[in-house]
Formats: sequence, C-alpha cells, structure tokens
Amino acid sequence: MSSTSATPLLKDELDIVIPTIRNLDFLEMWRPFFQPYHLIIVQDGDPTKKIHVPEGFDYELYNRDDINKILGPKANCISFKDSACRCFGYMVSKKKYIYTIDDDCFVAKDPSGNDINALEQHIKNLLCPSTPFFFNTLYDPFRDGADFVRGYPFSLREGVPTAVSHGLWLNIPDYDAPTQLVKPLERNKRYVDTVLTIPKGTLFPMCGMNLAFDRELIGPAMYFGLMGDGQPIGRYDDMWAGWCTKVICDHLGLGVKTGLPYIYHSKASNPFTNLRKEYKGIFWQEEIIPFFQSAVIPKECTTVQDCYKELATQVKDKLAKIDPYFEKLGDAMVTWIEAWDELNPPANTEAK
Amino acid sequence: MSSTSATPLLKDELDIVIPTIRNLDFLEMWRPFFQPYHLIIVQDGDPTKKIHVPEGFDYELYNRDDINKILGPKANCISFKDSACRCFGYMVSKKKYIYTIDDDCFVAKDPSGNDINALEQHIKNLLCPSTPFFFNTLYDPFRDGADFVRGYPFSLREGVPTAVSHGLWLNIPDYDAPTQLVKPLERNKRYVDTVLTIPKGTLFPMCGMNLAFDRELIGPAMYFGLMGDGQPIGRYDDMWAGWCTKVICDHLGLGVKTGLPYIYHSKASNPFTNLRKEYKGIFWQEEIIPFFQSAVIPKECTTVQDCYKELATQVKDKLAKIDPYFEKLGDAMVTWIEAWDELNPPANTEAK
Repeated sequence: MSSTSATPLLKDELDIVIPTIRNLDFLEMWRPFFQPYHLIIVQDGDPTKKIHVPEGFDYELYNRDDINKILGPKANCISFKDSACRCFGYMVSKKKYIYTIDDDCFVAKDPSGNDINALEQHIKNLLCPSTPFFFNTLYDPFRDGADFVRGYPFSLREGVPTAVSHGLWLNIPDYDAPTQLVKPLERNKRYVDTVLTIPKGTLFPMCGMNLAFDRELIGPAMYFGLMGDGQPIGRYDDMWAGWCTKVICDHLGLGVKTGLPYIYHSKASNPFTNLRKEYKGIFWQEEIIPFFQSAVIPKECTTVQDCYKELATQVKDKLAKIDPYFEKLGDAMVTWIEAWDELNPPANTEAK
Repeated sequence: MSSTSATPLLKDELDIVIPTIRNLDFLEMWRPFFQPYHLIIVQDGDPTKKIHVPEGFDYELYNRDDINKILGPKANCISFKDSACRCFGYMVSKKKYIYTIDDDCFVAKDPSGNDINALEQHIKNLLCPSTPFFFNTLYDPFRDGADFVRGYPFSLREGVPTAVSHGLWLNIPDYDAPTQLVKPLERNKRYVDTVLTIPKGTLFPMCGMNLAFDRELIGPAMYFGLMGDGQPIGRYDDMWAGWCTKVICDHLGLGVKTGLPYIYHSKASNPFTNLRKEYKGIFWQEEIIPFFQSAVIPKECTTVQDCYKELATQVKDKLAKIDPYFEKLGDAMVTWIEAWDELNPPANTEAK
C-alpha cells in the first residue's frame, strides 16, 4: 500500500513542545524545519533565568510561576527541575498533534548525506495506520514500495489509527547509566531504514527525546509523572508515559510506531548523575513492567481519561507496596487528568 | 551487548535443504557459500526426471520413490508435486541446524555492493539469544554496536534461545496473488539493516524461501502440511509451519527472529496460478489465524512433539468445521510426528 501524495505540513495542527532550551544553537539548527510551527517551551528550573529564543520563531514560554498560576493547587502534578515538566506543554496545547524533542538533539543525516526532516517523517507515521494485530515482515506496509506480504489476513489490512510515533537517535544511544558506564564509547551508527508497529500486548521503552503523538487520540495518557526535585527517581518520566500509553493504546485499538525518523543526539548526559537518578527505577521496573504487562482495563473504559484513572487506581493498589512514592504518583495521575479536563473542556477532548 | 568473535561456520552442524532445483545457475551462484555444507535435495515432482547437481557439492537427493520407501504408509504426510515436500529433508537430516532456500533465490548485494553471505547471518541470528518479552527499540541488542536501551528490564537481558531465523528478499517481494496482480511492477529495493525478535504472542507470516532454524529446538514443528497434488490449497505450507512454530516457540520460551539476511528473489511466480492455489487459503486464514492467536497449549506439554500433537487435536476440533481438509491435515500432523520420531529416536530428539 502506498501514499504517493506529498506529506502535509499540518502547520496549524501541530505544536512543538521543548523542555528548557540551554543550547543556543538548537533552534538555529532546526530553523528550516521548525519555523513554520508554533513552539511551546516549558522551562524546568529557576523561573528568573531567561531563555533566549532567536528571532522569527512563534512561541509561548511557561516557567514554574506560570504553571502555578494556571493550575493552582493542581500544579503539584507537574515535575519541577526535571524535563518531565514538558508534559505541561501537552496540556496547554490546543493542537491535534504534538512533537517533543530535547535540546541536545540535532538534525541527523541519512545515509546519502541529506538532512533528515524528522518532523515530516513523524507526520507520515501518524497519518498512516498501524498494524498491531499481526506482524508484517516487510515492516510498515504503508510506506512507498512496501505492502502486506503473503499470508497477512486481508481483514486486518485496514489497520488502526496511529496514536504515537517514536523516533530514534544516531550517535549517542539512549542507554541507562550502567550501560553508559560500561560502554562509554559506543555510538549508534546504524541507520535502520524502517518504521514498524509495536504489536498489541508488547511493551517498549518509550524515549521522550524524539517523540510525536496525536493528542486528541492519546494526549491524556502522556503524563510524564513525578520526577526530579523532591522525588526519589528521575529519567523514568518518558518510560512511565510509555507504559501507560501502550497499555491504553492496546485497550482502545490504537497504534504505536517506532523507527524512523532519526535525530542526532549530540551529548551523553553524565552517567554518575544518571545512576543516582535511575537506581531506584532500575529495581522498581522489575516489578512495574510485569504490572503493566498484566494490567487489564475494563471494557467500560472507553476514553483515554477513563482508562488513565483506572490505571491510577491499579497503581495505588498494586505498586504502593514497592514504595509510598507510587501512592503519591497514583494521586498525581488523577490530578493530571482533572487538570487536563479543566484546560481541555469535553467538547475538545471528545473530538476523537 | 556484542559478540566480536568471528561467526562459526557450523560446517558439520548444518544441512541445506532445497526443494527441486530447476535452475542450473542456482548452485553455481551459491557455490562460494554453500560448498562447505551438506545439501539435502527433495525432488517435488516426477521421480524419473534427473536433477543436475554441479561437481564439487556434497549432497543427497530424495525423490518420491525414496520418500515412499523410507516412510512406508506414513509417506502420505509428505506433499507431492509441491515444494512443501522439503520438510522431508528436515526429518532425514541429522544436523542441529537447517537452512532452506528456494531455487529462484540468488545472492543479494548489500548497499555497499558486496555479496551477502546469507548463511553467515542466519548462523549469527541463531547463535545469539532472542528477546521476545519486551521490545528493544534499537532492535537486536546482540548485534555489534547495539545494546539494550534505557528502560529495558535487566532481568530480561539474558534473552532466550533462538529457534528460528527468518530472512527477507530483495527484488520480488513475497506477495499473495491479489497483491501481485494489483502491483505487478513492485520491487523491494529497501535494504533494512536490522534483525529483530518477533514478540511473544504475536504471529507473523513465515516465508520458506530463506529460512533457518535449530531443528533440535523446534524441528518437529516445521511441518509444511498437505499442499499440491490432491489438496485443496497451495502456497500455505510455510505459513502453516510458521503459525504452529510461533505458537510452540511462545509456549516453550524460544525465540523467532526476522530481518537480515536478504537474498535476491529473481522471479515472481505466475499470479494466476498462485490465485488458484491460494484462494481458499485467503478465506480460511481469516479463521485459522484467530484460532492460532487464541490457541493455548497446556503446561504439561514440554516437548515440541507433545505441543505439536496437542495442536493437531485442536486443529481437528476447531478447524474441521471450515473444511474436511483440516480433519485430514490434523491426522497428517500426527503422522508427521510419528515419522519424525521413527527417524529421530528419542536420544537425538531430546538433545535440547
């Protein structure tokens, strides 16, 4: 199956959400690709620090004071001094699609040496269906030059709507601290020219560095949890969102794609700092992942919000025995949904 | 994780199984790669026809008369006038590994223009573990330059033994007749530089054109069914083997990999002939696939043989309502296991 038409820009339907920009080159490098879009910058630390945004970009910027003002007491569900705060941007956006990227991610080159327009590929991924119920050995059947192979059931070839497009990273791979420490020199040089649907019932480690999604379809599940200042863990914000999102996508019959596009990840974060942030998560994920693998959402939950609140209850019931943190996280998940619904009154959120 | 050592040849541990060689260039082209190995050629049609094998190859050849002589009345489980007969070669082999390839598949070139040693890549795939319980976004973590990404549970990083390596095809893609008819000119030009584990619980369309497996681990499940002469369908031999194999691998905790290596598939088979062979399968697979997706093998089944006989019973119970053919197929599945055990007495088959 092929979509030969040009990829639509979705200029008025997509916001780019960026947590704190520390790198002045970042937006300059992305200018040819990002300038047509509206940016939402969520500053993660000291609100008095000034973030420099170069001329010509259309943006809004939120610091901690803004978040407190807008959400009032519900602001406690948004992490402080951690890039997890980016999810506030998903909530205040009014667009159908979100692309989020870290400020140490630059434009990558394809094997022919051409700049990769990451956003264009994410849009392609989101606009064509996913195929979570059966694996296609030639990968995404909707890419040009590909199709469903012999033996693929015809009844499943329509696919399901794609909710998430998870992009990858050349140069510095997204490794945990122990792997960073063991392999300080490893670089990802392999350009794998594919996009595929992660099958139903399979979880994956969702990285927030280079991620796009349809916020009308799945937005309320993209909560990045409680990380950073005052919390016992960090670097699990995107993982948390990924586990919840995948379970809910599977329940609602939505698709998650991974693969292209690549960005160039310029700099490994400090493995010692990372180890401090991660080490509890490294233990905890051994119980959290089986929890999500076996989580069942009742049929009655037909909206993302319902599913998410149900998961919050299960988190408190089943994970609080690991650490009281999960009690707090479960509460924050509910607060997040309340805040989401306040900023996105039903007429909008039921647009699906 | 990386395996920097050279790939072992496994010269004395691998047989190459080829159904009928009609193409004289076939073995010449593969000579640099295949000559070290023992070939098992299974002739699918008229036993009086002579198959020409060039000088220098070590081979044994079986025609229908040989199959009848060796298996006696049990020979009725082996298809006649169909390349499905190749599975007889899996049964008579005494090696640990099997590679099977069609005679219209030639050596492909990688993007740098080098000949691809397909067998070497299959061996790599089979010798390193699979990761069916959680998806790794950088694909096979055991390839050089790759590893498990952040968020991958450490308890799952050991992986499980790989039972199957499913390779792909450049040039003519493996399409069904309807897709062939609609897209006569489509060629697969995309070299996707990856290998990945098909997750537990996910079925896939296994193609027999370019396939390797560990016959000690999964051999008895690699039955290519009843196709061709006197049967109502064709071109579902490898699909049938793939469904059964994947369900049994999932039950026994074994892995199935797909992706590299590519071969060059030179010639599309006739789409009109294919349509005649396939059309019942196209209907039937709409019920067969859900059957396999929901098939549960009892815990008591701990060998491939036990699992396969259990599946045979379920096939007769649940699929015979589609067509009496499945009654016959269920019986043939049992005969196949009996024949397998006769040729491979327990001491060998329990080698796992």
